[in-house]
Amino acid sequence: MTHVYDVHEISLQGAFAGNPYLDVTLHAVFSQGNRSVRVTGFHDGGDSYRLRFMPDTTGEWTWRTVSSLAALDGHTGRFTALPAREGVHGPVRVSHRFHFAHADGTPYLPFGTTCYVWTHQPLALQEETLATLAGAGFNKLRMAIFPKDYPFNTNEPLMPVFTPRADGTLDFDRPNPEAFRHFETQIARLAEMGIEADVILFHPYDRWGYATMSEAQNRAYVAHVAARLSAYRNVWWSLANEYDFMLNTIPMESWDGYCHLIEEHDPVRHLMSIHNGDPRMNYDHRKPWISHVCIQNWDVKRMPEWRQAYGKPVVDDEPEYEGNIWPAWGNITAEELVHRFWLALTRGGYAGHGETYADPQDIIWWAKGGKLKGEAWKRIAFLRRLLEESGVTGLEPLSGLVDGWPWTRVSGVADLGGRLRFLYFGEHQPLEWTTGLPTDDGRYAVDLIDTWNMTIEPAEQVPPLVQHPTRHGDAVRGGVADAAFGVRLPGRPHLALRIRRLD
Amino acid sequence: MTHVYDVHEISLQGAFAGNPYLDVTLHAVFSQGNRSVRVTGFHDGGDSYRLRFMPDTTGEWTWRTVSSLAALDGHTGRFTALPAREGVHGPVRVSHRFHFAHADGTPYLPFGTTCYVWTHQPLALQEETLATLAGAGFNKLRMAIFPKDYPFNTNEPLMPVFTPRADGTLDFDRPNPEAFRHFETQIARLAEMGIEADVILFHPYDRWGYATMSEAQNRAYVAHVAARLSAYRNVWWSLANEYDFMLNTIPMESWDGYCHLIEEHDPVRHLMSIHNGDPRMNYDHRKPWISHVCIQNWDVKRMPEWRQAYGKPVVDDEPEYEGNIWPAWGNITAEELVHRFWLALTRGGYAGHGETYADPQDIIWWAKGGKLKGEAWKRIAFLRRLLEESGVTGLEPLSGLVDGWPWTRVSGVADLGGRLRFLYFGEHQPLEWTTGLPTDDGRYAVDLIDTWNMTIEPAEQVPPLVQHPTRHGDAVRGGVADAAFGVRLPGRPHLALRIRRLD
Repeated sequence: MTHVYDVHEISLQGAFAGNPYLDVTLHAVFSQGNRSVRVTGFHDGGDSYRLRFMPDTTGEWTWRTVSSLAALDGHTGRFTALPAREGVHGPVRVSHRFHFAHADGTPYLPFGTTCYVWTHQPLALQEETLATLAGAGFNKLRMAIFPKDYPFNTNEPLMPVFTPRADGTLDFDRPNPEAFRHFETQIARLAEMGIEADVILFHPYDRWGYATMSEAQNRAYVAHVAARLSAYRNVWWSLANEYDFMLNTIPMESWDGYCHLIEEHDPVRHLMSIHNGDPRMNYDHRKPWISHVCIQNWDVKRMPEWRQAYGKPVVDDEPEYEGNIWPAWGNITAEELVHRFWLALTRGGYAGHGETYADPQDIIWWAKGGKLKGEAWKRIAFLRRLLEESGVTGLEPLSGLVDGWPWTRVSGVADLGGRLRFLYFGEHQPLEWTTGLPTDDGRYAVDLIDTWNMTIEPAEQVPPLVQHPTRHGDAVRGGVADAAFGVRLPGRPHLALRIRRLD
Repeated sequence: MTHVYDVHEISLQGAFAGNPYLDVTLHAVFSQGNRSVRVTGFHDGGDSYRLRFMPDTTGEWTWRTVSSLAALDGHTGRFTALPAREGVHGPVRVSHRFHFAHADGTPYLPFGTTCYVWTHQPLALQEETLATLAGAGFNKLRMAIFPKDYPFNTNEPLMPVFTPRADGTLDFDRPNPEAFRHFETQIARLAEMGIEADVILFHPYDRWGYATMSEAQNRAYVAHVAARLSAYRNVWWSLANEYDFMLNTIPMESWDGYCHLIEEHDPVRHLMSIHNGDPRMNYDHRKPWISHVCIQNWDVKRMPEWRQAYGKPVVDDEPEYEGNIWPAWGNITAEELVHRFWLALTRGGYAGHGETYADPQDIIWWAKGGKLKGEAWKRIAFLRRLLEESGVTGLEPLSGLVDGWPWTRVSGVADLGGRLRFLYFGEHQPLEWTTGLPTDDGRYAVDLIDTWNMTIEPAEQVPPLVQHPTRHGDAVRGGVADAAFGVRLPGRPHLALRIRRLD
C-alpha cells in the first residue's frame, strides 16, 4: 500500500558483466484500468535496480517490467494506492497561466530560498540547515546535484557524485549510488516539511569535471536523475544554474535535448525551467517544454514585461541576495530584498530569497545552509503568511494603475478570486490614496500593512480623490480612477494595502 | 558698453494701425568685421519695439535694423563689448558629447530643480523662492511661461500672458507685454545667481486656452519668445512639459516646426529639448535640432540605454519627486531621490530635483516655489559640491563594471580628465571591494562618501580581491577585475567611493 503522491518503490536484482548504468535498460508499465504509465528504472549499485512510481489516483495499480537484462524482465506486481496523507497535496503545477497550484488544487505561492550545495556539506551542518528551514517559512529550495567550486566554496563535497578511479579522477560513466541516495533522502525530508526541491542538474562552478562531461555522459546523467527523482512529488527540474555560462561546453541544442530526455523519463511531468546568469541571456521560456520562467534579474519592476514575453508564471529566483560579501550579486540590504519581493508579487510574479553574509568559516546560507543571519527572511515569511491567510490563489496586475502598464509607479494586484487586492507603495509615501481601489459600492475591509515592521492594522477610509475637473490635455492619463473610496496613509515608505470585499 | 554674455538692448518707437505683434517684421544685423548676426526684434506694447543681442566676443559691434514699418527701418548704432563680468561664463553648451560646459569652457554639471509656475505667484512668494534658491545649491530651474491649472494649482496667475478681452477671454493674438517683462526680469535674476532657466513653452495643464491656441498663434508665440529671451545667457529651451499629453492639439510635425522657429530666431542657439510624460513616449532626441535628452523616467538605472539610444547628454528631469502628495509621481522618499541622483550621475547622466510635500495652502515647491521642506536638496547640494570641488568635467561609465553594461549592479564612472573616478554602491553593502578600482600602480587617494550623512573620509586600501583560480565556466564574467588594490567598506548602504590619482 502506498498513499497517493508518495513513492512506490520496486527493487530488483540482476547480475550484469558490463556497465549496467550505460547498458541495461529497464522500465515498468504501471496500469489502472485502461490507463498505463511508463516508469523508467535505474541501476542503484551492485546488482541492484529500482523503479519508483508516484501514484496520483487511489485504488489498485498493477505493474510489469521490461528490461534488456533477463533477470529484470517480466516481473509483475500490484498494490493499492490509498488517499493522500494529511497535508500532502501532490506535485506543483501551473495554474491559471501565471500561477501555481498543487495537483489537488491547493494554491501554491512559491517563496523559495537557495542553498545550492547544502547536501554536500558535513551531516551536522545539513541537520542545522533542515532545522533552520523548519522555522523559516520557505516552501521551495534551490539545490544542486553537483558540488560547487567557487569563492567561499572551496571544501570537498561529502561524497563524489560519480565514482572515483584509482587516480582520484571521477569516472563519469559510473554514478556513485551512495551520493544519489543521500540526495534523495534529503529531497524526501524536504517533502515532509512541505518544501519543494528545485533541483539543479548543471552549473559551471566546478573543479572536478562535472561541468565538462561529454554530451553522452550528460544525457545518461539526465536520464538517470529523471528516473531516480521523478517519483518525489516535491521535485522541480531546474536544468541549470546560469546555463549561459556553460554554452561553451553545453550548447543550446543540448539544453533542449536534456529537457526532452526529462520529459521522456518523468511520468509525473514536474515543473521544468532553466536559470540564466547574464540578465540579457534569459532562456527562451516560450519553448513548450518549459513550464515556468526562472530568471536572475535585479530589475524586478520589469515583471510585467516577462509575463508578457513568455506567457507563463515568472519566478525571479535571484533578484540579488541579502548580504555583505564582495560579489555584487550578494550584498544588497535586507530592506531592498524585502522591497523586491513585494514588487515581484504585486506585479504578478514571484521572487526568490538568498542570503550571503560573510562568515569566518565561509558557511554562507546561499551555498551551504546553516543558520540564517539576516533580516529579510522574517519579512518574507510574513508576506507568505499574509497572502496565504488572505486566501490568495494568484495575483494579477491591476491594469492601468497610475501610469499604465508596464510603467506603473505604485504596484497593485487583484486575486484571481476577485474579492481581494493588494497595493504596494514601496518608495512612495503618499498621505492619501485612491487609484486602484475598488470602483463599486461593495463593503470592503482595508488594512494597512507595514512590510518591514510586519504589522497589519485597519486603514482609515476617506472620500475618494477626484480628478481636478478642468482640462489637462485630453490625452492626460494617470489621474485618479473612479474609485468608490480613498484611504488615508501615514506618509512613510514600504507600506501596502490589503483590500478585502466583505459582501 | 555691454559686457560679453550680457544683454545689449535697443529700443525703437513706431506707430502702427494694425496688430504689430502679427504684422510688423523687425530684425537687426549686428556686425563685427566680416561676422554678422541676425537678431529678431519684437513688439513690446504700445508703439514700443525692442531688439536684444548677447555679444559673445569683445570689441566693437555695429548694427542696422530692417523692418516692414518705416519708423523702425534703417536705424544704426554701435557699441563696445567688454570682457565678461567676474563669474559670468556664458551660455551652456554640449561638451564632450554627453556633457555640458559654459561657452568660456567652464564645466557645467546640471543640478536642476523645478518650480513650474513660480513667476505666476504673488510677488512676496516669488521673493521667497529666489531667497530659497540662493541657498539651495541648484544651478538650473525648470519654469513655464504659461500659468498652470492642475491639482494644487487652482489660483489665478499674477498676470495673464495674453491680453484679456472685455468678456475676460484672452486674445491670443495680443501678448501681455507686462507679463513677459516680469518673466524676463526673473530670468535675469536667476542669471545673476548662476542659475540656468529651463524655459518651458507649452504644457497641457490649462483652463485659460494657452494649450489650445491655433497653430498660427502657437508659431507667433514661439517666435516672439525666441526674440524676447534668446539674449539671456541662461536660457534653455524646453519646448514642452509632457508634450505627448498635447498631441491631440499639437501634432508631432508642429513640435518639430517650433524647434525650427526657435533656431531661426535664436542666434545664440541655446540648448533645446522637449520633455515627455509617458515614459514610453520619449521624444526622438536623435533629431539634430535637439541638443540634449530631457526625459521623465523613474528608472534611472537605464541611463546607459538612453545615452546609447540618443548619443547626447541625458538629463532625467523628473525621476519622480520627493514628497507625500497623492499623485504617484510626487511622493517618493528623500532617500530614494538622493539614490536616483547618485545612480544617474554614476551611470553617465544627470537628474533633476522636485519637491511635492502637501501644504495647507497648496504652496508646493514643484509648482509655486516658496521654501524647501524636504531632505533631498541638501544631499544633492552636497553631491554637486563634491563633484565640482573634485574637478569633474564629465563622468563616463566605467565599462565592464561587474556584470557589464548596461546591467551594472554597482555603478561607476571615470572623469573625462582620467584622474578621477567614482563608484556608487547604492543598495549594495559589501565589506570590501575591488572591481572598478584602478588597474595601474599609480598612487591614489580613495575617499569613502556617505551620500546621506554627507561625510567624506579616507577609505582603507587593502590588497585586491583575486578571482578564485579554478574553472567557473570559461564564459563566466563579472568577477573581480585586475585592480591594483581593494578597499575595505563598512557594510552599510548608500556609500560611494571617490578615487583620485595623486601622481
